[in-house]
Amino acid sequence: MLIMASLVLPAGGSARTLQQVLNEGRIQIGGVLIAPWAIRPEPGELSGFEVDVSKKLAEDLGVAIEFRVYSPERIVAALEAGEIDLIAAGLPISPETAIRVNFSQPYSTMGITMATNRETTVLVTELEDFDDPDYRIAAVAGSEAAELVAQIFPTAELLEFETSQQASTALVDGSADAYLDNEPLPTYLSLDNPAIVDTPLTGPLIQSRSGFAVNKGDPDFLAFLNAWITAREADTWLPTIHSFWFQSLRWRDE
Amino acid sequence: MLIMASLVLPAGGSARTLQQVLNEGRIQIGGVLIAPWAIRPEPGELSGFEVDVSKKLAEDLGVAIEFRVYSPERIVAALEAGEIDLIAAGLPISPETAIRVNFSQPYSTMGITMATNRETTVLVTELEDFDDPDYRIAAVAGSEAAELVAQIFPTAELLEFETSQQASTALVDGSADAYLDNEPLPTYLSLDNPAIVDTPLTGPLIQSRSGFAVNKGDPDFLAFLNAWITAREADTWLPTIHSFWFQSLRWRDE
Amino acid sequence: MLIMASLVLPAGGSARTLQQVLNEGRIQIGGVLIAPWAIRPEPGELSGFEVDVSKKLAEDLGVAIEFRVYSPERIVAALEAGEIDLIAAGLPISPETAIRVNFSQPYSTMGITMATNRETTVLVTELEDFDDPDYRIAAVAGSEAAELVAQIFPTAELLEFETSQQASTALVDGSADAYLDNEPLPTYLSLDNPAIVDTPLTGPLIQSRSGFAVNKGDPDFLAFLNAWITAREADTWLPTIHSFWFQSLRWRDE
Repeated sequence: MLIMASLVLPAGGSARTLQQVLNEGRIQIGGVLIAPWAIRPEPGELSGFEVDVSKKLAEDLGVAIEFRVYSPERIVAALEAGEIDLIAAGLPISPETAIRVNFSQPYSTMGITMATNRETTVLVTELEDFDDPDYRIAAVAGSEAAELVAQIFPTAELLEFETSQQASTALVDGSADAYLDNEPLPTYLSLDNPAIVDTPLTGPLIQSRSGFAVNKGDPDFLAFLNAWITAREADTWLPTIHSFWFQSLRWRDE
Repeated sequence: MLIMASLVLPAGGSARTLQQVLNEGRIQIGGVLIAPWAIRPEPGELSGFEVDVSKKLAEDLGVAIEFRVYSPERIVAALEAGEIDLIAAGLPISPETAIRVNFSQPYSTMGITMATNRETTVLVTELEDFDDPDYRIAAVAGSEAAELVAQIFPTAELLEFETSQQASTALVDGSADAYLDNEPLPTYLSLDNPAIVDTPLTGPLIQSRSGFAVNKGDPDFLAFLNAWITAREADTWLPTIHSFWFQSLRWRDE
Repeated sequence: MLIMASLVLPAGGSARTLQQVLNEGRIQIGGVLIAPWAIRPEPGELSGFEVDVSKKLAEDLGVAIEFRVYSPERIVAALEAGEIDLIAAGLPISPETAIRVNFSQPYSTMGITMATNRETTVLVTELEDFDDPDYRIAAVAGSEAAELVAQIFPTAELLEFETSQQASTALVDGSADAYLDNEPLPTYLSLDNPAIVDTPLTGPLIQSRSGFAVNKGDPDFLAFLNAWITAREADTWLPTIHSFWFQSLRWRDE
């Protein structure tokens, strides 16, 4: 009867504390399939920035890892339901989500930045120069990036596209002078087309920071995660792995 | 009987957790009436940096806000007594206060800085130059700023005044060459008299940092507040509102 | 009988919370006897960076202090056993230790840096220049510093010594061109031999950060320590005392 009872429960059917994770020797981590956070290069395989982070975290805890993939809409509910012990998904630290779960300190930054066509913007010296009817700025229709273009470059011509692929193609073929999108897309475009595309800004125009999320009620878990981030930033493990996934395209060759 | 019992309790008669705040749909926040932290422009009205912060925090929590005003001497006791759920009052993070309540990470910095008379200090190139009997430095008698003048400019002439108003007037009319006081007074003086007064230092001479304070025993409240600060700094809401109240005088026109 | 029972328990036989420390008016802090963290200048005397930090912390808590000395191998177990309430020992924030205890935010940074012989390295302009068979780099055999030399200067000549004393002597007498070791040894060597030895790097090559450690299960203790560090960094007490012990040799004269 007891065995039956445990069989009908879903795996990880209730939220586990750090101590339970250690006792059971297994951590269940949730991520989202968005490159480069988590990627499925082949069926049954997983790689990506948050997959590397999760593996290192589990290794440092001395426990086995189970990495589960969720949609961005479902992942917080999955943590609340105890299907997973931790979210490592580039989840933005937002007031709305912080009401439901506890965030660690941030360990990565996301944001919207600008890629430019080197040739058609050769005369531009300041960001404000783009606020000119002569400049055509590409973004995905209805996206936060498109709103940002309308807001900070109101007199420029906004070219709206259905997909990031189409918007970035417009920049490369010269039919747009600039392209705003979420990182790392503008950086990747510049790495793929170094002679044509530049990313002239030193930081994102709008940014959010992301951290691990765990369930409420376990401050020791949070203290461990904050110490882990501090340690793995100091020994350069985190900045090195972040740079590999967000500032290079070497991961495509692996 | 039960209803009676609850009626005789003062409103918010015991410390409430974040969960209780969310359940009851109402947060009681305490502040102090010191410009620009909290200001009463008209009877019954409140504005100011911490009032804006408190409103945004309550809005993000999805709860109603009750903002109560205390003296600096009484506000920590009011939190301990459960009259309020949270302090948003530019409360300096100090060891003494941290024994009694839990502080969030800091979200603003306060400090003593120097305003100078542009004309009489035109030859000054370094801070050390003021340590000279030819320079007259104004401060409020018995204040921390006056102690600081005596300590770092021992050979300068210290002019002590009863009020900040008198000390700053001395700077503007040229009877003092420099004036040390708590921010934002020196910055406001320079904004009000841009042709006469400068604030040449890039940072305060002495500083303290301030954060939210909540009662002990609710680490989830602290985790929420830290995430809120991280999110509202990343999206520039906090630095923008801080700059409006501390680096400009536009709020006087509202 | 009750008195007997308490006598057979070791002093501080179980982990105490911050509240218990305050109630009993006494804190037991553990350190390690490594200069300049803790030093025994005379039998029965203790001084050093962490001794100063511990005294200030106890003073700010308004409690008596008992500072106990442990080996680095034993100190975490001593905290877990409740022999001490807090570790102030330059303990590196590492994932491995963070599984056992809770770390505060960091308040100091340690790392390996390089001292150079001014005369023999006069032509060096970049760190990479040392990766040359003409350069002889000293380190303690089998140390992390020696591994680092092999890793970042693979073609340089690695000179291995039994002790830091021998390695640093080789640098001073010109039989080595550079010397890698844990801070503050390279800085001290340069302060002792300013005409001969330089520390040209602006930061350590490898670093770790250290904080206070307390037992798990007391998030209010952690919140107090984080506020204490924030306050004592803002008022410059912590950077001043750190600089005295790590960037000067004035403590040798005391």
